[in-house]
Formats: sequence, C-alpha cells, structure tokens
Amino acid sequence: MMQSTAVSPRRTDDLLLESLLEVGVNLSAGGNRRRMLDEILRRARRLLSAEAGTLFVRTDGHLRFAASQNDKLPLPEITRTLLDKQMVVSEDSLAGFVAASGRAMNIPDAYRLPAGAPFRINHDFDAATGYRTRSVLAIPLKRPDGKCVGVLELINRLGRNGKVVPFAAPEESGIMSLASMAAVTIHNDKLQANLDRERRNTILRLTAAAEFRDAGMSNHLRCVSRNAGLIAAAMGLDERHVDLIRWAAPLHDIGKVAVRDAILLKPAALTAEERKEMQRHTLYGAEIIGEPTNPLLATAREVVLTHHERWDGSGYPNGLGGSDIPLSGRVVGIVDVFDALVSDRCYHEPIPIESAVEIIHSERGRHFDPNVVDAFDSVKDELLESYNNPDVLPKFKDA
Amino acid sequence: MMQSTAVSPRRTDDLLLESLLEVGVNLSAGGNRRRMLDEILRRARRLLSAEAGTLFVRTDGHLRFAASQNDKLPLPEITRTLLDKQMVVSEDSLAGFVAASGRAMNIPDAYRLPAGAPFRINHDFDAATGYRTRSVLAIPLKRPDGKCVGVLELINRLGRNGKVVPFAAPEESGIMSLASMAAVTIHNDKLQANLDRERRNTILRLTAAAEFRDAGMSNHLRCVSRNAGLIAAAMGLDERHVDLIRWAAPLHDIGKVAVRDAILLKPAALTAEERKEMQRHTLYGAEIIGEPTNPLLATAREVVLTHHERWDGSGYPNGLGGSDIPLSGRVVGIVDVFDALVSDRCYHEPIPIESAVEIIHSERGRHFDPNVVDAFDSVKDELLESYNNPDVLPKFKDA
Repeated sequence: MMQSTAVSPRRTDDLLLESLLEVGVNLSAGGNRRRMLDEILRRARRLLSAEAGTLFVRTDGHLRFAASQNDKLPLPEITRTLLDKQMVVSEDSLAGFVAASGRAMNIPDAYRLPAGAPFRINHDFDAATGYRTRSVLAIPLKRPDGKCVGVLELINRLGRNGKVVPFAAPEESGIMSLASMAAVTIHNDKLQANLDRERRNTILRLTAAAEFRDAGMSNHLRCVSRNAGLIAAAMGLDERHVDLIRWAAPLHDIGKVAVRDAILLKPAALTAEERKEMQRHTLYGAEIIGEPTNPLLATAREVVLTHHERWDGSGYPNGLGGSDIPLSGRVVGIVDVFDALVSDRCYHEPIPIESAVEIIHSERGRHFDPNVVDAFDSVKDELLESYNNPDVLPKFKDA
Repeated sequence: MMQSTAVSPRRTDDLLLESLLEVGVNLSAGGNRRRMLDEILRRARRLLSAEAGTLFVRTDGHLRFAASQNDKLPLPEITRTLLDKQMVVSEDSLAGFVAASGRAMNIPDAYRLPAGAPFRINHDFDAATGYRTRSVLAIPLKRPDGKCVGVLELINRLGRNGKVVPFAAPEESGIMSLASMAAVTIHNDKLQANLDRERRNTILRLTAAAEFRDAGMSNHLRCVSRNAGLIAAAMGLDERHVDLIRWAAPLHDIGKVAVRDAILLKPAALTAEERKEMQRHTLYGAEIIGEPTNPLLATAREVVLTHHERWDGSGYPNGLGGSDIPLSGRVVGIVDVFDALVSDRCYHEPIPIESAVEIIHSERGRHFDPNVVDAFDSVKDELLESYNNPDVLPKFKDA
C-alpha cells in the first residue's frame, strides 16, 4: 500500500539503519514477495527522500512493475497507468538500459538528457498522469551470480526546501544494500517457483511416457486428474492437498510401462497368471517413483500403490481395508473405475453413464469408501462434464 | 577464516549499520554459502563484542557446524574439535533446544544454569580445548515461513574492561537482523540444492521407467553415462558440461517406451517398416522430454534426438552431419554403439572388446566425429573398466 509519508530531513544513517533492520527482519518473517518489495521501495524512497519510485522485476527480456509509489498521485491512478504494462530490456527506456547494462544511472533532469545518452526516457507516465519527473536514480538489482533480476527507480529527490534536487552518487547512500535485499527477495521467489515447476515437470514427463505406452489413454489421465480433484475438494481437503491429488492422479498407472504388450494390450480376458502380472503394475510404479523427493511424488507413490485397494480389504497389492488405504488412493480408485466403465477400452465396450453410476453406488461400503461415494454424488454433475465437454479437462502442458 | 580482530568499544549503531550494509551487499555479490556465513558470524561477534561464536545449520533433526570463530583459540584447534561433529535437535544442548523451540536464549553463565532450565549445556568443547565459556546468546535462524534453519551462538561478551559480561536482550541489539540474513542465505542455498535434486530426479525417474521397459539394460545405461562423461571430460569440456552429458546420457533411449514389444524385443532382424518405427524412438523420446524446463533436460533432449546421427550425414532422424550434430549427441552416439557391440543383446552375441575398438576406429570420420574417436582412445583404459569392474559404474540412486 502506498503511504503518503512526508519526507522529513532526518539523519540519513539513522534512517538507513532502521530500514535495513526492519527489512532484514521482514526477510525472514514471512509474507509474500509483492508486499516485501513494496516495503523495500518505501524504505528506499524514505532513505533518499524520493517523492516517487518504481520497482521492476525482470523476466527474460522484459521488466514488469512489481511496486510503484508516488506521494503526489493516488494509488489507483498509478496502478491503472502502470501495472499491466511491461517494458522490453533495451535502451528504449531508462530501466531497460539499466537492466541490460547492469549499471546504475543518476539523471539530474529526465527532460534534459546529456547529448549522446545511450538510452531514451519514456514520458508516457507523465503524459498520462500530469506528474512531472525530474531527477531519477535507477539501480540494477543483481542476484548472487551478478545477473540483473530487476531495477529500482527512485524519482524526484526532495531537498530541504521541498524542491526537487539531483540524487547523490548511489555508492554513498547505502541504497545499494536495500537493492541487494530486493534482489535476494526476487531471486528466492524465483528459486521457489522453479522448484515448484520442476516438481510438476517430473510428473508431466512420466505422464507423457505413460501416454505413449497406452495409446488413447491420454483423455483417461485427464479425466482421472480432474475428477479426483473435484472429489478431494468435495471431501473438504484444503487447496494444497487437492492440488497434490490432482497432480499425482495421472501417474496412477505409470507401472504399466513395465508390463508386456501381450498382457497390457490383450483384447481378451487375462489368465490367472497374466492377471497377477498385470496387478504388479502397482509395485512397478512405486519402483519407478522411488524414494519420494517431495510431497508431490510422495502422494503419487501413495496413489500408485493403493488405487486398487478396496474398502472391504479385497483389493491389491496389499489387501488394505478402510482408512488404512490413504485417502488419495481411495479417491483415485473410484474415479479410475468410473472412467474405465464409461470409456472404450480394448477389453470391453463402454457402459452408459447411468449404469456406471449405479455400479459405483452398488459398491458403496464394499469396493469404495462410503464417504468418497457421497462426495462423488455431490459433484456428479460437474464430474460428468469431463465426458461431455473435453475443454474442461486439464492440458498437462503448463509445467 | 577466523580473524583475531580486537573488539573495540565503538558505537553499536555504527557497527550495526556497517555490518548490515556490507552483509547486504555481499548477499548479492556472489561467493559461496560457507564464506557468507563466516562473514555474518564475524559481524555478529563484532556487533555484540563476543569473543567467540558458532553458526549451526539445521538439516532435518541435526545441527551441523557451518562456521566457528574464537579469538582465543587458533582456527585449526576449533576445526579439529568441532567441524566434523553434529548435534541432535533436542534439549541435550543449548543450540538443540533453541532450534527445537524457536526461542532465543540469553545465558549469563553457562556453568550456573537456573534450576529447572529446560536444556543442558554440553561442556565437551571447553574440556577439549581448555576454553572457558561463560555468557552465551543463542538465536534461532528462522526462514520466511518461520521454520528454524539454524542457530547463531555468540559466546563471552567482553565488557569495556575486557572482562566477560552477560549479553543484552537480543531485541535491543539489532542482532535479529543479521540472524535474518543468515537464515535467508541458508534458505536460498537449500532451495538451490533442492532445485538441483529435483532436476536430477526427473532424469532418474524416467531412467527407472526405461529400465523396466528394456530389462537387462540397466548396466547399459550406467556404462553409457560413465563413458560419455569420460569422453566429454577428455574433450576438454568444463565440469558443468561434463555433468550435464553424464546426467543426460541415460535418457538417450527413453523413446523406446513408446515402441511396441513386437519390434523392441524381436529376436530377429527387423523389416524395413519395423526399422522405421524403431528409429522413431528418437522422436518419441523428444516428445516425452517435451519443452525442456532446465539445462539438464535440454541436454537430454539433444542426446535423445541426435545420438543416432552420423558424422557423414547418413544417420537419423534428421540426417545431420559434422558439427551440426550437438557434441552431446556425438559423444553419447559413440559410447552407445560401443556398448551395444560388446554387450549381450537380444539381436546379437557380444563382440570381443578389441574387435569393437577396431570397429570404432574404422568408423572414424564416417559414423563418428574424428575428435570424439581420439578422445575415446585417450581414455580407453579407464572406459574399459566399466566392463571389468561394475563397482565403477554410477548407481543412479543419489538424487
């Protein structure tokens, strides 16, 4: 939130100390990145008596506005003018040039650039708002390996008399330290986002392998993922757990890559021996997932191992019963069966949806957990959309 | 490195400001974690005039010594006494208690704990070195979500007369801010390590799936990985690139999970049609890997797509020639062929190693890049160990 703090002529050292202390504590006190960057910008402005300022975060070749403050303009006006735009990293803007070159720039007057300045200054913001930018200090935010992850722009330093004056050289002001903290915050956030992406990507790549092995199953995997998520949410699980089940579900049959075609694709009933081998896909799958390195794979392993267990203990591979079967396995188990019933598989013709629902009901408390069947019923209409409208199915593309 | 800086009675605010500035700048100026934590500990000691101190990093239920300094003891003696040990997170030590409870502890005299103190203090270090610990300030290092990732212990605060005095309450000293930075540094480092592990894990899980599909191939994958690494290193690639190739190599045939058993496992020569389908494993593999999310998968995709291309342009799937074939593909190509020649495959008997080497030589400048063949020759003895001593093969276990 922007605060219209009047800038008082306090001793710079005191202000800086206070800024660093509080930002430092905030760094480990939680809260999201945007709030943190807003706080860093506010403290940087107070430190250098800047009337306005913007903090940009770099993503590949672009800079996005992550925080913007201006004591002369109401926040909604700044937001409307700026926050949806992004700039290219190039000499077509001051921030773009600072990001590209990694050099801090101290501009006494934005409307009187020295001849031969290696960048342009974009005056669209001033034109849109009537604000008058004069002195500007633009500082690259560099992460530990030196790569620039953003730009801090401070605008219109106010002198003691309230007039706009040029900024001092950045090395003298301690502002570089606040910039470092902003860079660390941005870097940390990106590391976390990359980590989340890589975790999902492991699932996606294995799912891609499973789809190849069992052609025509890709809609099956999408249905199972979506419907498991619907039921998990209906059972009152929090968003995080619903998400874990939704991501883990497509891996339920990954172990089938280890089953021979002669069994996997057999167009007739399996012999007892063949059925035993087919059932081993649960164990093969657990081996493929291995010792889980994160909660996503831990859930996937649960699902792989237990989606063929039954509430009454008559399932496989371990004959677990009741709540000994992890909820993830009970949920994926029901959507897997339902999808198999209504789909065209090599070993049977599809069954009408109403008959499939009846079969699910008849197995309440036998094959299936009664609570999961009730949750299934409570979201049935939404769940059936998976079959009537393929557009609702997840794409498994956006890692 | 420990420095025997005499502790002068400077104004605390000046020292703190200086500390925060320099640590803040260091946070983004690069350098490894251990150096950074050593620096934070040194500054924390100066800030609070502590004669000694230790910084512990938490890993699951244990605390490891990450930095330790003592102005009265030479560094080798501290190192020998401490650095290989680790402590359990429990009330059996002060640091363990602080890590478990998340509470800072300010102890005026380590040998006179108040009755009913909820922890013990371990005096082994004093006993081993003859040093006398008296006042101690122990602070939990908390990461953004509040989880404690380590402990900072400051020992023996020196008063103006050089005598040991108790520490002030931590909230008053600004030490919490340095602790925050230490926590962010540790957190950042762990995020990076987790990210690296997840990236490798994607490869490992896909490799596990590939091994199932093609039973008996697991030594093949291990040989190809090790030998590709040996040749890449012999060609002068830096460690990072050698590592990328070593990790990408086991995925070279991942596309075979998409090829039907009737072709993949055929014990006789393939028909022209079947051979065409078999060759598509390069394209299927690229689809399984998808749009690479990191350099490891980018290299894997290169290897998957190009390990059957040939130097003279007669390979598949794209008929690339010469240096248009990525080096990773040229390197994995040669070790894959060599391993296939000397191994027992369903479609041929193994060939003696000397004959296999001759075949590689005869294809120099035809199938294979002459430089890669030369690199192969330069590490031949080490490479052949892969076949004589399975212990040298990587285990693909340590993600």
